Amino acid sequence: MKVGILTIGNELTSGMTQDTNSSYIANEIKTEGWEIAAMMSVGDDESSIASGLDYMLKISEAVIVTGGLGPTADDITTASIAKACGLNLYTDRVILERIKERFEKRNLKWTENNAKQALFPEGAEIIDNPTGSACGFSLERGEKIVAVLPGVPGEMKWMITEGLIPVLRWKFKESEKTTIRTTIKLFGLPESTIDEAIGQLDIDLPGVIIGFYPRFPEIHVVITSVNTDRYAVSENLEIVKMRITERLKKNIFACDYETMEGVVAKYLKSKSMTLAVAESCTGGLIADRLTNVPGSSDFFERGVVAYSNPSKIALLNVPQSTIDQNGAVSEETAVAMSEGIRKTSGTDIGLSTTGIAGPAGGTLQKPVGTVYIALTDGKRKACRKFLFRWNRKRIKEISAQWALEMLRRYLIGRDI
Amino acid sequence: MKVGILTIGNELTSGMTQDTNSSYIANEIKTEGWEIAAMMSVGDDESSIASGLDYMLKISEAVIVTGGLGPTADDITTASIAKACGLNLYTDRVILERIKERFEKRNLKWTENNAKQALFPEGAEIIDNPTGSACGFSLERGEKIVAVLPGVPGEMKWMITEGLIPVLRWKFKESEKTTIRTTIKLFGLPESTIDEAIGQLDIDLPGVIIGFYPRFPEIHVVITSVNTDRYAVSENLEIVKMRITERLKKNIFACDYETMEGVVAKYLKSKSMTLAVAESCTGGLIADRLTNVPGSSDFFERGVVAYSNPSKIALLNVPQSTIDQNGAVSEETAVAMSEGIRKTSGTDIGLSTTGIAGPAGGTLQKPVGTVYIALTDGKRKACRKFLFRWNRKRIKEISAQWALEMLRRYLIGRDI
Repeated sequence: MKVGILTIGNELTSGMTQDTNSSYIANEIKTEGWEIAAMMSVGDDESSIASGLDYMLKISEAVIVTGGLGPTADDITTASIAKACGLNLYTDRVILERIKERFEKRNLKWTENNAKQALFPEGAEIIDNPTGSACGFSLERGEKIVAVLPGVPGEMKWMITEGLIPVLRWKFKESEKTTIRTTIKLFGLPESTIDEAIGQLDIDLPGVIIGFYPRFPEIHVVITSVNTDRYAVSENLEIVKMRITERLKKNIFACDYETMEGVVAKYLKSKSMTLAVAESCTGGLIADRLTNVPGSSDFFERGVVAYSNPSKIALLNVPQSTIDQNGAVSEETAVAMSEGIRKTSGTDIGLSTTGIAGPAGGTLQKPVGTVYIALTDGKRKACRKFLFRWNRKRIKEISAQWALEMLRRYLIGRDI
Repeated sequence: MKVGILTIGNELTSGMTQDTNSSYIANEIKTEGWEIAAMMSVGDDESSIASGLDYMLKISEAVIVTGGLGPTADDITTASIAKACGLNLYTDRVILERIKERFEKRNLKWTENNAKQALFPEGAEIIDNPTGSACGFSLERGEKIVAVLPGVPGEMKWMITEGLIPVLRWKFKESEKTTIRTTIKLFGLPESTIDEAIGQLDIDLPGVIIGFYPRFPEIHVVITSVNTDRYAVSENLEIVKMRITERLKKNIFACDYETMEGVVAKYLKSKSMTLAVAESCTGGLIADRLTNVPGSSDFFERGVVAYSNPSKIALLNVPQSTIDQNGAVSEETAVAMSEGIRKTSGTDIGLSTTGIAGPAGGTLQKPVGTVYIALTDGKRKACRKFLFRWNRKRIKEISAQWALEMLRRYLIGRDI
């Protein structure tokens, strides 16, 4: 079964708002084993909507429309779709009462334009919206279906899963294909190396597709398996996942919804180890990422953003002489920062970064992008030097990622 | 002039990758005073590309296509467009040599599939790509134009501005409408209050549109002015901007590309003042945002992420008794943290946050979302208590934003 997605709104065609609904819906549709024929966005304009709907109905069996169901004058989706289908509008009394009740409950003044949200094309099947006032609806057009949902992502998402997908499943029940997908997240190798490594595996299983998605600074490899055989679909996926994992194991840090900071947090918690972080060039980004993990106070004791030399000396006990002799951006200073934060905080591990994020501050010996990252645990002192290209923000991002990766390697007992 | 945008790639129709090219191009096109007829995404599939192109050519004068110009087997855009237009492909010898040179320079092994990127439809005007190997091209179809560009955002953006827009300007020079746009960024008021305030201004100027775009935790009001009169277009924009500014001045913190951290940095630098930050619940996010500003070492002395009580005591000299009597999440502790970081770092201003970001840790007296933010300068001690809803990440985000907003208010001499 092929599905078309039509998103409506001047905010989309003006480039002001990123259309996130289409990719969300596409993902849901793919998971059901259906195909996306095309995704289209048009403005709040009657003829554009009619023409877009007409095209989408030609190339697909079901068209999902979102946006333009609000109470204001520029919300014209319901009226435009009804007109395009040659249907009259009627007021649904039950929905109208419910909208009025919402206004009363919230002490909002009722204005007549709000009654618009109780209008539906004749013959429409209403799709309920438990969290907002804009209900959706579906229309049968011969063997095809047009479904219209509000554009507010939070409302649309619930209505897709709970309201629309079951209707589509029932209507297009001949669809038997299952699609499953897994994401392998890699870090520390160039895309071309991963591409080549997977190419050499020479995987040729029916219905299996391997995709590359660079997500700076990570690379995500997505395995999709489509099959009419419910057992083969997962077996094929597992075979491919296993073979890729065997080959690229060292650089795989997580799968699917796991994050680098989540993985590191999991290891720290399971080992009951504690961590403190001393950041210079990453400016707090490592601490920010670690504290995004719920329950991070179990292992994250403190962080210091030691941007100035006096702060490195006062908060981290970095000797003035270390900075004088080697510079603030040096292996010696990085290690002293790591040792300093570990000792003063009494944690098991100290992690530190110092570098030149730019755009100013680079020299011939230490150009912009020079970064030292150190990890100490009272016995070991590990430090790596990097030379990154890219801009200030990306240098911060890849430095933070490398610091977490070094920590991950340490926690699983690998070379840092 | 109407423009259609066609983005190509299985990663788009599978929902794996968000299409950001369309909204970028739409924005560029609107700025030229042209309209977007529709934006469409299709997979790497010959018949979908042909059908999509055909539809787009019907509803617009120019079609901009991106994606599918790479060297791999699934990159079929050039061949599909040529076939749809009934044109043969030819190899451009100059481009081919250049691609080979790139391989040599980088010591990469040449494989024959890379020659594909030197193939163009007969009669195509090549659009140069100085940063990548995939050149674009444009084709005249009667009075209409089809332009094809690579999908890599960094390459596409340059080629749109420097390569394609000048061609379109020349080809469609009858276009006389000018569109200009400005964004007013607000914080600290609900959307409905801003909506009502602007509604009451009762602005009715020809060609002026006002849009609301919530960008958590900010709200952006975008004024668009379209006019054939080059003077009226900017005059109308200025009038509306002035009237909105008069009404909502207190909550406007920036315009257009300025950010909250950029504005705060500008004020700190112009006053030659220095800052240190002590973060608990924001976990380093304030330091991260401030250090994203180039040259932040001029004013940002240090940051401390004092997640544990011992770290609040050791690094910020918060008295144990203050924590014992009032709790770590309290006005007293927030002020002591702010005073502590200011004194130990010797800066003019100390800024601190302490709160419960959740999901665990809430109590009846201090539920999840309770946050104290304090600012001290040696004379004044300002502290505000907030009770936020939302999840852990959003509580961090809005707390960091409020801390920067309090700092902004302080720097312009307003009530905090």
